[in-house]
Amino acid sequence: MRNINEDTITQAVIASFADCKDGRLRTVMTSLVQHLHAFARDVHLTEDEWFKAVKFLTEVGHITDDKRQEFILLSDTLGLSMLVMSQNNRKPSNCTEATVFGPFYVEGAPIYDNGDDISNGAKGAPCYVSGQVRGADGEVIAGAQIDVWQSDEDGFYDVQNLDEAGNAIHRARGRLKADAEGFFNFRSILAEAYPIPHDGPVGRMLAAVGRHPWRPAHLHFMIEAPGYETLITHVFRDGDKYLDSDVVFGVRSTLIAEWKRHEAGVAPDGREIGVPWYSLEYDFVLNPSEVPA
Amino acid sequence: MRNINEDTITQAVIASFADCKDGRLRTVMTSLVQHLHAFARDVHLTEDEWFKAVKFLTEVGHITDDKRQEFILLSDTLGLSMLVMSQNNRKPSNCTEATVFGPFYVEGAPIYDNGDDISNGAKGAPCYVSGQVRGADGEVIAGAQIDVWQSDEDGFYDVQNLDEAGNAIHRARGRLKADAEGFFNFRSILAEAYPIPHDGPVGRMLAAVGRHPWRPAHLHFMIEAPGYETLITHVFRDGDKYLDSDVVFGVRSTLIAEWKRHEAGVAPDGREIGVPWYSLEYDFVLNPSEVPA
Repeated sequence: MRNINEDTITQAVIASFADCKDGRLRTVMTSLVQHLHAFARDVHLTEDEWFKAVKFLTEVGHITDDKRQEFILLSDTLGLSMLVMSQNNRKPSNCTEATVFGPFYVEGAPIYDNGDDISNGAKGAPCYVSGQVRGADGEVIAGAQIDVWQSDEDGFYDVQNLDEAGNAIHRARGRLKADAEGFFNFRSILAEAYPIPHDGPVGRMLAAVGRHPWRPAHLHFMIEAPGYETLITHVFRDGDKYLDSDVVFGVRSTLIAEWKRHEAGVAPDGREIGVPWYSLEYDFVLNPSEVPA
Repeated sequence: MRNINEDTITQAVIASFADCKDGRLRTVMTSLVQHLHAFARDVHLTEDEWFKAVKFLTEVGHITDDKRQEFILLSDTLGLSMLVMSQNNRKPSNCTEATVFGPFYVEGAPIYDNGDDISNGAKGAPCYVSGQVRGADGEVIAGAQIDVWQSDEDGFYDVQNLDEAGNAIHRARGRLKADAEGFFNFRSILAEAYPIPHDGPVGRMLAAVGRHPWRPAHLHFMIEAPGYETLITHVFRDGDKYLDSDVVFGVRSTLIAEWKRHEAGVAPDGREIGVPWYSLEYDFVLNPSEVPA
């Protein structure tokens, strides 16, 4: 510790964790310092670049508030979120794959019955969504809890548009239960591509490295059932031009599905729709929870 | 990009930088993503740990303002600042070594003449500092610009204590010039050990990993002269109990010097000092700038 130089600094920092009583924290911090220092050495980070990084992180911190989490956007756009999600949600190949959670989930969304329209006035072409929730062995899962949320045709989630009192009106977002045979269906609006918030430091980073801020159209699902792992995923809309360049790296080919277009007429639920409408049918397969020994 | 999983995500992110027109930025971002992902894989970072990291960085951002830079504290306490400084300030072994800049330098400090008292009322035992600035071949450097700054006996820099208008009164901080023979001398106060600001997230991190927040007593110098590399360094006080555990990893053995204690009496500048006082003598050796071809 009295002869710190560029060759000895990393071991000195690791040694400083010797009295850490939390073994896991010590492991994480040791690895963090090794990789952080290896990065600075590999690129021979300059003092000017270091200071630009300090300023960038400061800006990310300053734009972050209760409504906007720029550090999560940063993690998402650098692929860290998808990596962490993937390595913590390994599933057998016959189960529905998970993808990133995203920042727009809200607890306590409105409760609907099968057949209801969850759009609640959100702008977009009508869409009829249906499917079945089953287990990995093909077994029916009765009464699974389904959370669904999506953006409107302008690319905004309800929580991005607040009323004068600062509250969001829940639109294109809801909770419903699959029936005794695992089937569910609801009406909503057509999913559309949208850009992540890019008027802040993460947007400037994307522009600097030559990337666009767009996500391909998708519908978010979180599905919970006793005895099964909770599934957090999206269904992506086939044909979207951003499927090969999702800014948060969330696309998995098994999650791409077709939204079928229909002329104005009678929807599968027997109701008349006076404009062209879409339908999506997608089944989910949940992975059984590991049973504690 | 349509089959992102934990094995393919890193290459997908790197490929997304293909259109980056700034070659250096592309190199830095590519390495950053490789090391960030390798860290998350090596420790099998969990989703809960990832979210704790997001919250920690958010707190670091929110406590950072014009007066406090918690990201620099974080970089300092993880040894990144010392590493980046070291690898960008390699010098021949006969030159004075550099160390971390720290967050307390101020541009435009008061200008003094040799022999002046720069303490300006800062609390601490009187100290007489003297030395000579030379070049790597032993040559005298006339008129080098010397910036000096230090904390008071309570461990605070002047910029940490603001008056009612929010301004700092410059104390124990000043600029002076070495004379035609490279000699300089000034009065100030005795350097004392102090803790870095530890009432924020970095302080909580230090506590969690079992580390104290203290720096050994030191005097900051920045020395500039035409034809030589600017030297940013400290002189550390021999005998300090934190020399082996500097929280920012800044100690180099060649920078440790003796502050000699003297009973009340006549100082080297001929003036009477009515209390016990200290003296420090330290010479600096600058590295010639590389001459452009």
